[in-house]
Amino acid sequence: MDERELIAKLRPLAGPAGLDLRDDAALLSVPSSKDLVISTDTMVEGVHFPEGRIGGGFSERLLRTALSDLAAKAARPIGYSLNLTWPTNREPRWIDGFVRGLMDAQQAFDCPLMGGDTTSGGTSLIASATVFGVVPKGRMVTRDGAKPGDRLWHTGTLGRAEHGLQIVMGRLPDMPPNELMLCESAYLRPEPRLVFRKVLRRYATACADISDGVVSEAGHLAAASNVRIDLDAQTAKRGRFGDDYELLFTAKAGQTEELVMAADALGVPITQCGAVSLGEGVWIDGERVEPSGYRHTL
Amino acid sequence: MDERELIAKLRPLAGPAGLDLRDDAALLSVPSSKDLVISTDTMVEGVHFPEGRIGGGFSERLLRTALSDLAAKAARPIGYSLNLTWPTNREPRWIDGFVRGLMDAQQAFDCPLMGGDTTSGGTSLIASATVFGVVPKGRMVTRDGAKPGDRLWHTGTLGRAEHGLQIVMGRLPDMPPNELMLCESAYLRPEPRLVFRKVLRRYATACADISDGVVSEAGHLAAASNVRIDLDAQTAKRGRFGDDYELLFTAKAGQTEELVMAADALGVPITQCGAVSLGEGVWIDGERVEPSGYRHTL
Repeated sequence: MDERELIAKLRPLAGPAGLDLRDDAALLSVPSSKDLVISTDTMVEGVHFPEGRIGGGFSERLLRTALSDLAAKAARPIGYSLNLTWPTNREPRWIDGFVRGLMDAQQAFDCPLMGGDTTSGGTSLIASATVFGVVPKGRMVTRDGAKPGDRLWHTGTLGRAEHGLQIVMGRLPDMPPNELMLCESAYLRPEPRLVFRKVLRRYATACADISDGVVSEAGHLAAASNVRIDLDAQTAKRGRFGDDYELLFTAKAGQTEELVMAADALGVPITQCGAVSLGEGVWIDGERVEPSGYRHTL
Repeated sequence: MDERELIAKLRPLAGPAGLDLRDDAALLSVPSSKDLVISTDTMVEGVHFPEGRIGGGFSERLLRTALSDLAAKAARPIGYSLNLTWPTNREPRWIDGFVRGLMDAQQAFDCPLMGGDTTSGGTSLIASATVFGVVPKGRMVTRDGAKPGDRLWHTGTLGRAEHGLQIVMGRLPDMPPNELMLCESAYLRPEPRLVFRKVLRRYATACADISDGVVSEAGHLAAASNVRIDLDAQTAKRGRFGDDYELLFTAKAGQTEELVMAADALGVPITQCGAVSLGEGVWIDGERVEPSGYRHTL
């Protein structure tokens, strides 16, 4: 399959901002009341996704995980661009699934394709999604605003993606069928918590999404904010693998009740999982721990 | 080399908009008088650049060719993001050259790194640069504005990059030393014609940069603008290979004198190389030709 065929396959994904993928560039008109938020994720077959699985599972996860970064910054997505390096040795039939996965994700989150570059080469599928979102001016939620006295929270359930990857790799953990399904979906179709953005803007002092292990992400918040974070031991254990793409955020202790009610109104489960104080680093049960990042193996 | 080491190497490239590469996302505040122009290019080792050459030559060419798309849209660059997949089997010493090449290009064109994603995997270096630029609102030069009666122009000298690649591959063409140097530089350090943007905005009715062969690029302009383009045979021959990253643009015939003087004032050589009329397709010496795109081999 050559570049032209690839582009023809991708064309139905394009929205108006992409000038129908026919120009050299995409044009964005950002309203003066908004800031633009940009994030990008690369997925490598065999590193971030099981080898040989380059259809809809790959592409849907790519776009969903990229959108999760926008969710963590309290932004609303407006579009994305795609860099696709299609392995020369691979059957073209995979591309249809790949396109379908993108279409599903972009329709679910109202985020059309605006442009990109397609190449072929190598023996592994490599794809990058660069997502664009908007926030009201000056309202992006960053990692550096956590203050002593704040509480630490996460959305959703941690640990499912770890089991989900096992399931995708064909190793069935011993759990009820219903839970198997939830775990597989957590890995293949992680939910970017975009619906949570107004709550974040109102209550979060800092936020990151949990792509690496939760200890590592708490470490990012602690380092950026110059604070100490005490992390609940159970949460650290459940979220050690990462890949859940839930949000980890801090909020003022005095706003706990309002926060809980606002999250509940959106149907987003949140769990208090730690506290912020003067100092540095991540602590569990009174001991400082070294954040361990994501391991680049499957 | 792991992801953390890679990021540490890249950090000196970051400007303020990138939030020091420590957050999940980059933040852009686009003035209300501007549109944002976005373009992205992927370079694959062994496909778009000779295998094994993954130092400064690779990265400098990557950023320069990406910036060329902004030049073609008459935009001023404000920053870029980088997706880097570093081959696991490769010596880390290459990364210093890679960073230096980016630094040289970003300083030459005032375009800091704003963010990105670094991964390792595979056996070929794959890197994407997504560049961001601004134009006064509504003033992006597109591909679709060529009108019957316009003249076709290109900047600079076509054909050098083709020889330059030969030189880089160690096959010396028979030419004077001075010309060898110009050709090698045309391939390794193509000049994005950013300095030409005000002239383009004023006079160009349509524009593309010449990354594929010139016939192919003329075909894009003709198709997008619904016109016929007659292309000078010499130009078609010299520019058959592409990779020169000069600009191909159309302008009103009645403004030729002003255009020539404006380009001359900037020191940018331009050559008239064809004409636009009613009809479709690209024609050379009265015969319609099929645009042939870039060949994915070195």
